[in-house]
Amino acid sequence: MLVGVPREIKDNEFRVGLTPSAVRELVAHGHKVIVQAGAGETIDLDDALYRAVGAEIVPDAAAIFGRAELVVKVKEPQPSELGMLREGQVLFTYLHLAPDRAQTEGLIKSGCVAIAYETVTDERGGLPLLAPMSEVAGRMSIQAGAHALEREAGGRGILLGGVPGVPPAKVVVLGGGVVGMNALRMALGLEADVTVLDKSLPRLKELDLAFAPALKTRYATTDAVEESVIAADLVIGAVLTPGGTAPRIVTREMVRAMRRGTV
Amino acid sequence: MLVGVPREIKDNEFRVGLTPSAVRELVAHGHKVIVQAGAGETIDLDDALYRAVGAEIVPDAAAIFGRAELVVKVKEPQPSELGMLREGQVLFTYLHLAPDRAQTEGLIKSGCVAIAYETVTDERGGLPLLAPMSEVAGRMSIQAGAHALEREAGGRGILLGGVPGVPPAKVVVLGGGVVGMNALRMALGLEADVTVLDKSLPRLKELDLAFAPALKTRYATTDAVEESVIAADLVIGAVLTPGGTAPRIVTREMVRAMRRGTV
Amino acid sequence: MLVGVPREIKDNEFRVGLTPSAVRELVAHGHKVIVQAGAGETIDLDDALYRAVGAEIVPDAAAIFGRAELVVKVKEPQPSELGMLREGQVLFTYLHLAPDRAQTEGLIKSGCVAIAYETVTDERGGLPLLAPMSEVAGRMSIQAGAHALEREAGGRGILLGGVPGVPPAKVVVLGGGVVGMNALRMALGLEADVTVLDKSLPRLKELDLAFAPALKTRYATTDAVEESVIAADLVIGAVLTPGGTAPRIVTREMVRAMRRGTV
Amino acid sequence: MLVGVPREIKDNEFRVGLTPSAVRELVAHGHKVIVQAGAGETIDLDDALYRAVGAEIVPDAAAIFGRAELVVKVKEPQPSELGMLREGQVLFTYLHLAPDRAQTEGLIKSGCVAIAYETVTDERGGLPLLAPMSEVAGRMSIQAGAHALEREAGGRGILLGGVPGVPPAKVVVLGGGVVGMNALRMALGLEADVTVLDKSLPRLKELDLAFAPALKTRYATTDAVEESVIAADLVIGAVLTPGGTAPRIVTREMVRAMRRGTV
Amino acid sequence: MLVGVPREIKDNEFRVGLTPSAVRELVAHGHKVIVQAGAGETIDLDDALYRAVGAEIVPDAAAIFGRAELVVKVKEPQPSELGMLREGQVLFTYLHLAPDRAQTEGLIKSGCVAIAYETVTDERGGLPLLAPMSEVAGRMSIQAGAHALEREAGGRGILLGGVPGVPPAKVVVLGGGVVGMNALRMALGLEADVTVLDKSLPRLKELDLAFAPALKTRYATTDAVEESVIAADLVIGAVLTPGGTAPRIVTREMVRAMRRGTV
Amino acid sequence: MLVGVPREIKDNEFRVGLTPSAVRELVAHGHKVIVQAGAGETIDLDDALYRAVGAEIVPDAAAIFGRAELVVKVKEPQPSELGMLREGQVLFTYLHLAPDRAQTEGLIKSGCVAIAYETVTDERGGLPLLAPMSEVAGRMSIQAGAHALEREAGGRGILLGGVPGVPPAKVVVLGGGVVGMNALRMALGLEADVTVLDKSLPRLKELDLAFAPALKTRYATTDAVEESVIAADLVIGAVLTPGGTAPRIVTREMVRAMRRGTV
Repeated sequence: MLVGVPREIKDNEFRVGLTPSAVRELVAHGHKVIVQAGAGETIDLDDALYRAVGAEIVPDAAAIFGRAELVVKVKEPQPSELGMLREGQVLFTYLHLAPDRAQTEGLIKSGCVAIAYETVTDERGGLPLLAPMSEVAGRMSIQAGAHALEREAGGRGILLGGVPGVPPAKVVVLGGGVVGMNALRMALGLEADVTVLDKSLPRLKELDLAFAPALKTRYATTDAVEESVIAADLVIGAVLTPGGTAPRIVTREMVRAMRRGTV
Repeated sequence: MLVGVPREIKDNEFRVGLTPSAVRELVAHGHKVIVQAGAGETIDLDDALYRAVGAEIVPDAAAIFGRAELVVKVKEPQPSELGMLREGQVLFTYLHLAPDRAQTEGLIKSGCVAIAYETVTDERGGLPLLAPMSEVAGRMSIQAGAHALEREAGGRGILLGGVPGVPPAKVVVLGGGVVGMNALRMALGLEADVTVLDKSLPRLKELDLAFAPALKTRYATTDAVEESVIAADLVIGAVLTPGGTAPRIVTREMVRAMRRGTV
Repeated sequence: MLVGVPREIKDNEFRVGLTPSAVRELVAHGHKVIVQAGAGETIDLDDALYRAVGAEIVPDAAAIFGRAELVVKVKEPQPSELGMLREGQVLFTYLHLAPDRAQTEGLIKSGCVAIAYETVTDERGGLPLLAPMSEVAGRMSIQAGAHALEREAGGRGILLGGVPGVPPAKVVVLGGGVVGMNALRMALGLEADVTVLDKSLPRLKELDLAFAPALKTRYATTDAVEESVIAADLVIGAVLTPGGTAPRIVTREMVRAMRRGTV
Repeated sequence: MLVGVPREIKDNEFRVGLTPSAVRELVAHGHKVIVQAGAGETIDLDDALYRAVGAEIVPDAAAIFGRAELVVKVKEPQPSELGMLREGQVLFTYLHLAPDRAQTEGLIKSGCVAIAYETVTDERGGLPLLAPMSEVAGRMSIQAGAHALEREAGGRGILLGGVPGVPPAKVVVLGGGVVGMNALRMALGLEADVTVLDKSLPRLKELDLAFAPALKTRYATTDAVEESVIAADLVIGAVLTPGGTAPRIVTREMVRAMRRGTV
Repeated sequence: MLVGVPREIKDNEFRVGLTPSAVRELVAHGHKVIVQAGAGETIDLDDALYRAVGAEIVPDAAAIFGRAELVVKVKEPQPSELGMLREGQVLFTYLHLAPDRAQTEGLIKSGCVAIAYETVTDERGGLPLLAPMSEVAGRMSIQAGAHALEREAGGRGILLGGVPGVPPAKVVVLGGGVVGMNALRMALGLEADVTVLDKSLPRLKELDLAFAPALKTRYATTDAVEESVIAADLVIGAVLTPGGTAPRIVTREMVRAMRRGTV
Repeated sequence: MLVGVPREIKDNEFRVGLTPSAVRELVAHGHKVIVQAGAGETIDLDDALYRAVGAEIVPDAAAIFGRAELVVKVKEPQPSELGMLREGQVLFTYLHLAPDRAQTEGLIKSGCVAIAYETVTDERGGLPLLAPMSEVAGRMSIQAGAHALEREAGGRGILLGGVPGVPPAKVVVLGGGVVGMNALRMALGLEADVTVLDKSLPRLKELDLAFAPALKTRYATTDAVEESVIAADLVIGAVLTPGGTAPRIVTREMVRAMRRGTV
């Protein structure tokens, strides 16, 4: 199969559809790969690296979309890309169509076969191409939360883990799925006082087995959520909402501001 | 040296001054050991076990006190024993003389050389014969506290470690010395939510290094003690008071009763 | 739906069918809840707490059974309650019908729809309403066993975890299911020397992965059980027997007594 | 003794010399404490809290410096404060005199007895009032370093702990003292691949015992430092330099920039 | 059923089809067991032990094969044994037929029902009689690898875990299945610097959860395998190949020798 | 100072007095270093590596001994080297003079200043140049012991850690010093059932704190040693005997052979 990798053109997107390692795998399995010149350069993946593993470098997106049977990208096609997609061509990328009528219509009109990363399901019903994003998001959320608690970031000047003699901050993680588990793991790693709430007792059992006694688990009744959130220094919202967004990070200061009506 | 081991006669004392293992060590180092018949029988250390390692079994306490150069016991000499002690004879046992004028005078009158286990000091200033007692006391305190929280023992029916979905009980350990560290270790082992308070920051650092993030450490200001104790389900008083007694175990129910004036 | 919560009347039952938190959830989902006056008072759940979350307090059991479409209880209906159950009314509680012909006949006669907590099965074949009982039972069994080993409780005066220089007690857990795993976890927490036996190698693998090297696993042949139990200071019987009872706790002293024929 | 607590006036200093908890301790020990109005308000320690524990609130700094026998502050005296210090009055605060000739001369001229927190030494030669600062600095350094590696902070978009399938970032901690140990602990908590270098083998042994196998220790030869730093994604400089400053946080991007001469 | 256990006759096979414990189980379930004299003697399982649990000792293999309805062995039947197998008799042992035409034809000709341990499948598709072999193989591989790195075994004189100040050896485990997980667990136990590569992200997640931060996981692209192996001091090949053999243990010296063409 | 590094000439000694890293440090501190050609080549430290860090390569030992003010070696001087040592020259190496009269007399006769690595003492009374040897010896002892238990090495075919369902081997470590602690750490790492015996209760406390509940500690009475050793599968003798040798590794088979008088 002829696989093409255009340069991403959406703002603030530095990634690329295939790394040289991935190209090498495809070539080893008998496929041919074409890569747009400069596709990986913002993350130090020079054209030479792609050439070294057998890719052909082509000058522009038009060459990719014109020739490739399969286009591998990161972000949904931008307007200029939609116009280049062809009948029968396969597009493999994140699409997030739900809120994006224009893109949806553009794809339909193009006649291409568009496969969204976020909908690929494995034999156990999992979402293998979304899970790594959730892992990253969960781990980052604590890093971001710790930063948000710093005085100069507008926080109360609280250190998640305290120091000897000063008790740690209370972190509450709402939801014990992939995002939540990765968040609580990092929060425990920073030695915070962590409670996770979830509506699934079997899930709480798994987390309890893996992380007790440092982790506290609590069944997510309305009362429990209310009490926990009000007493928390940092709340990570990690409940899966289909089509949902990144974990929510809320500090006590933000809660107070909300109550005062200043946010 | 001729070492003698009488049978303990104080109420509820089942231990014996030397086990057969200890006798074996002394004999191997060239000492002679005499043991009162039946000295160890309440804890399954039959006379035959003592004979097997080279002890001579003598029929009564009089034979021990009459012949031995060194008498090894567990508890302070009881009145009948005081009368048998002799000038120059060495007595090695727990004495706890402070509150016990009669014993003190009896010992002085006997002319014996009395060495109290609880005052033996090692080269680092430690109390090597007291430390194991403190370890046992600290570990037992949690066992006793867990029992006291059971409904049928008059407690609130709380399980120290909770179960998945139900947060653990709050255990507060006042003092992070030998007793306190052994108590908190067992409390963490039972998966309770444990906070230790101490006035020594270096000690809190050691405990923090050994037990974080499951353990919370807090510097023992009056405020901190007050807040912690009031919020606790179980408080272990493990502050060293010279000549002091066993750790205090207090449950929330007891605190309430005290406040109601019913205790 | 109109949900009713009577006060439990069986001896030594202090629990209540729904806590205020649970009532709040039901009310939030559009149900109406009636609670018998004083239903939660023995465990500090006053009527005011129920009212605050939207329950109606009714004066007696007759009002509950007379009006409720769904009755939520803890224990099986007592004779006086059986008579109040009505055709088509739903009863949700522990039943344990197997050994209780009178109750069974009373339920049939009432015409109610009785759903036993202990038979509710989840999509994985688990028993979600029994599992927390097993967790509590497993965790309590070690607490009870530790207590039974104390001298004043008639034990040998053994501390489960020993102290430095004195090896720990040997604890044998027969069965590695929910009860057994919770028991061994607490036993390891108290630093005992723990062996678990089970007839399922996959289960032993899971336990080995989670708790090695502190935990020893052994396949449960007759030989292995015999050897382990005879060498143990404390045995926890945690084999699931359908309709079975709580874990059995056996100390070495009890085994000896059984052998001497004195028990 | 009459102890006074003025409001801090140095830029960006939000702390206060004594918290209400500390005041309570002093008052309980028979001292009298005066606190400048608003001294703690930026960190939510209102005057009422101080009054509640027995402090007297005075309107301005002049009242504090005019009356107090002991002035407790956080930062070195600012020019306006230097002028208020009196002969024989004790000043207890951070001074950091080495680079600050003006302050030194001002203090000498005032005739006060100035005790610098950073020079208070305990019986073991430690610096008890600096150690908590080092703990905070060490723990914060990883938080800051993790943030610096984020793409939007100008980093390479690396997550310290990686995710399953993506190896973690390499963190190198130079120096295994208080700062270094706290830094490496947080780095391990975030699941980075951490190496610590130090010139003290006994210190490396302690760290190895506490943190192996997750932590790698390396004796700090010039070769070892060079190799480690060049291969690192994040370097924490935690070598104690008397009078030194906070830990240095260096990412690989910064190293590259230095090499390119662009920094 | 009449179960027979012949003595193993293949070179270097010291095991025996049934231990006395296993015989006891069978007898307790109503079966009769005959054991060839001396069947277990090389591993200290004397005939008396078999007799004690109810086995009948018979003098030779002919008696076993002549009488038994079910023959339980360890290794595939050797030529002399093939001739003794009978129509309808059940043979239960390891067979490994794939590369062994002669044995296959012998079994067919005998008319026996041969069940190979290595093909017995459980309800989850696992291979319960192979798994313990894999566990042993995985654990042994690190022991063997550590030995192979010793100077006198021709290695580089590297200690897997290093010592304080000397970083540990790099161990790469290819494949995170049963063999790989047991290998990496032992390698971490010896405090090596361990990376596991696998093509299954869900498997890497499980390993990451169980062993992070000490374990590094890496998705097994060709690039990743290449980089990891080249940088490793010890490589354990633990990829499951159906009908495959034991894990491969490769040290850096062997890799160099291969490159030099001297192996 | 002019420092010289001759090639080691004792049988089976592959090490070298200074690595290139060490030379670099010396040169950076203003010393001059001369290295005999080929001194490090058996462990891949080519002359070029030494030259690169500033060493001068000299052709033979005579040049080293003739010119160097300080000679740094690994092993005690061999007869040919003794003759080259000069009045006032400093020799820094392992000497182990106690059993070696000839070497002692040779050194005296040479007039050199000989400093033995094994006698260098630090400010805490430790032996910093021996400790790493003890660490290596302790860690290697378990590796060697595990190997000795393999069937083909003449052992009983026991795997230290067992596998799920098969309990681990019993390892007894006599002595909890540097050797013992490193041995027990590796034994626990391989998931054996480990007991350490020592005559120092404070040391057992440290080990208990660091390694419980997986490690069992036992005070080393004669009885305790006897019982433990007889029940062990592997015994590591790690008691420090001044001038003593490497840890002793004894398997159960060896004990049996000793008892049978065949060893």
